[in-house]
Amino acid sequence: MKSYRKELWFEIKKRRKIVNITSQVEECLRESGIKEGLLLCNAMHITASVFINDDEPGLHQDFENWLEQLAPEKPYSRYRHNGCEDNADAHLKRTIMGREVVAAVTAGKLDFGPWEKIFYGEMDGKRRKRVLVKIIGE
Amino acid sequence: MKSYRKELWFEIKKRRKIVNITSQVEECLRESGIKEGLLLCNAMHITASVFINDDEPGLHQDFENWLEQLAPEKPYSRYRHNGCEDNADAHLKRTIMGREVVAAVTAGKLDFGPWEKIFYGEMDGKRRKRVLVKIIGE
Amino acid sequence: MKSYRKELWFEIKKRRKIVNITSQVEECLRESGIKEGLLLCNAMHITASVFINDDEPGLHQDFENWLEQLAPEKPYSRYRHNGCEDNADAHLKRTIMGREVVAAVTAGKLDFGPWEKIFYGEMDGKRRKRVLVKIIGE
Repeated sequence: MKSYRKELWFEIKKRRKIVNITSQVEECLRESGIKEGLLLCNAMHITASVFINDDEPGLHQDFENWLEQLAPEKPYSRYRHNGCEDNADAHLKRTIMGREVVAAVTAGKLDFGPWEKIFYGEMDGKRRKRVLVKIIGE
Repeated sequence: MKSYRKELWFEIKKRRKIVNITSQVEECLRESGIKEGLLLCNAMHITASVFINDDEPGLHQDFENWLEQLAPEKPYSRYRHNGCEDNADAHLKRTIMGREVVAAVTAGKLDFGPWEKIFYGEMDGKRRKRVLVKIIGE
Repeated sequence: MKSYRKELWFEIKKRRKIVNITSQVEECLRESGIKEGLLLCNAMHITASVFINDDEPGLHQDFENWLEQLAPEKPYSRYRHNGCEDNADAHLKRTIMGREVVAAVTAGKLDFGPWEKIFYGEMDGKRRKRVLVKIIGE
């Protein structure tokens, strides 16, 4: 069994943004030399998400509006966590979007359907944060 | 390490439906001959879900009502994505339900609790769509 | 390839509670002797969750309030599933929080960011319930 590990670093200038990281994850897979196995890609921070969906800007705006409806950022006083922080909404938003993606690796490629792309979802940016890529297989 | 891959195809006649696919996934596991490992089962489409819950029709109706509350299908104009499509709600609903399931394989079986069943959740049907089953182990 | 399996049992005295299980999962990892691989930790029950977030009591209260907003426990009659049960809300809440976590194992440790902790989220307690830990690797 082979294993591979890499951290991808991000510093998003805004509080929230969705970033397509598919090509960076594919580059990891090439570097690993693994042909058959499983790839885990997860946010290492609890106010960010890694998820699979469509690379369409209208949809990304829909995600932004929808997450703000389900877990509004403000007023900060609506959350107990915000005694010490102002990012409780980011913890909740990331819960909706998910921490991690597990993808199949087949014949050295991400075994994806036609529209599947991997995204980093930043929900509390303006700082350096990391995503982990771990691949195991042969 | 052994690995196994299969696509399961679905063509759901309605826009939304929940389908129990546990026996199809168990059949994949038997075919694979893998006794110890991990099984990934994921929707290959970004408007469908694979998830684990209870095989109880009342609950499935509750999921339908609840998802329609959290991310209503109509009016289509409420979503930016619907400039080109009419299925933005399906992208959001699938985000709630999840893209994938990772299950343990122990002694050649899905290592499940007593009520765990795997479902395909179609949120934008009336077309052929796929689920991927990938198993790695020994 | 090595594999390891253990069940962790819980009996929560209340209907809902969030319990930090990180040290129990780390103990499993030590017992397994696995240095490189993937660790799956999942609720074996469909009214409970395993998830990764912050070990901060204010945030846990925010999760409780938020889940009650998104999928209220009462009135029980609001859900079809509650013809036979009273826990439909727990199925929905667990869907938001997620069934499982997949974590990377690197150099014999959980490969986590600085604030990542694993939690058992009970949503229908007052009974004995289980979490599965499955680890594969070398």
